[in-house]
Amino acid sequence: MYLYLIRHGIAGDLESVTPTDNDLSTQKTIDLDELRSLTKVGRKKIAQVADRLAKLDVTFDLIITSPLVRARQTAEILSDRQISTQLQVSEDLKPMGNLPAWLMWWQARTFDDPISTLAVVGHEPNLSHWAELFIFGKVVDRLVLKKGGIIGLKFDDDRLAIGTAQLICLLTPKYLVDSKI
Amino acid sequence: MYLYLIRHGIAGDLESVTPTDNDLSTQKTIDLDELRSLTKVGRKKIAQVADRLAKLDVTFDLIITSPLVRARQTAEILSDRQISTQLQVSEDLKPMGNLPAWLMWWQARTFDDPISTLAVVGHEPNLSHWAELFIFGKVVDRLVLKKGGIIGLKFDDDRLAIGTAQLICLLTPKYLVDSKI
Repeated sequence: MYLYLIRHGIAGDLESVTPTDNDLSTQKTIDLDELRSLTKVGRKKIAQVADRLAKLDVTFDLIITSPLVRARQTAEILSDRQISTQLQVSEDLKPMGNLPAWLMWWQARTFDDPISTLAVVGHEPNLSHWAELFIFGKVVDRLVLKKGGIIGLKFDDDRLAIGTAQLICLLTPKYLVDSKI
Repeated sequence: MYLYLIRHGIAGDLESVTPTDNDLSTQKTIDLDELRSLTKVGRKKIAQVADRLAKLDVTFDLIITSPLVRARQTAEILSDRQISTQLQVSEDLKPMGNLPAWLMWWQARTFDDPISTLAVVGHEPNLSHWAELFIFGKVVDRLVLKKGGIIGLKFDDDRLAIGTAQLICLLTPKYLVDSKI
């Protein structure tokens, strides 16, 4: 089984966030960081990454994303380009998310269709640390994952056991987009 | 300082090797494996990888290659495309080569020009094992490096100390070539 860890694209800073009336009326506290959107360049780069993946026949059976706006937008751009037909959201993929909790959920899940290629869209340093846990069984803080970058892991089976993965690629968007934006 | 470990392209098998009269007259024993050449597809893919690196302004101050024909040819294609102006050969980069010996030589070298981006062209499993030594200080056999693939490492300085590198990319040619060959 293949697991691709994808970091969200370039997002605006906190000053760029304008909560909607709906945000203001439905939430007791608003974490502005959760509302940061992809910038125009961020969207464009992720769209180019998606186009390149599609061209290379790199597709996913399922994308699971962090609920934060910049991650969801990244995942949606990938889905819109037919990179994946299924898209889910997991609270465990938030910044400082909980890998053991996510992994317990994953290992206990039942899907109608078998998942042999899964993509997870989230944040740093989570994703590179998770990759290190999957590969080496511990965090060593040595993988550099840029915004819009992808870590590809290969597992013996769909249990995604810690300390068992092979690293098959670590891509920066630079190598995936066709032109400088 | 940046170190790029590049695996040679696709080569012919032992049956494809025809030693030249020069090989036969100058060498007491001939290791046919050392004479294996890149195939036509192998050459084409490496040329496409080189073109892509040039387009992305990924260039090297120096390429050091294994003396084996398939590695030398790979390094020469990269050099021919102006990816690097300097090309050297090191016996330590042969299959089952000697990283400590190469590293001692590197750390004791004196170059006229400082080298901030170095490429090494060689073989598996050497290159992925060396990458793991540079990153983690031990071989864990978890990095997958395909023919024509590239591992990019970043070091604090040009001593290239074991156990200090960050992994900045792990690329298969698939992500670098423009079309399926």
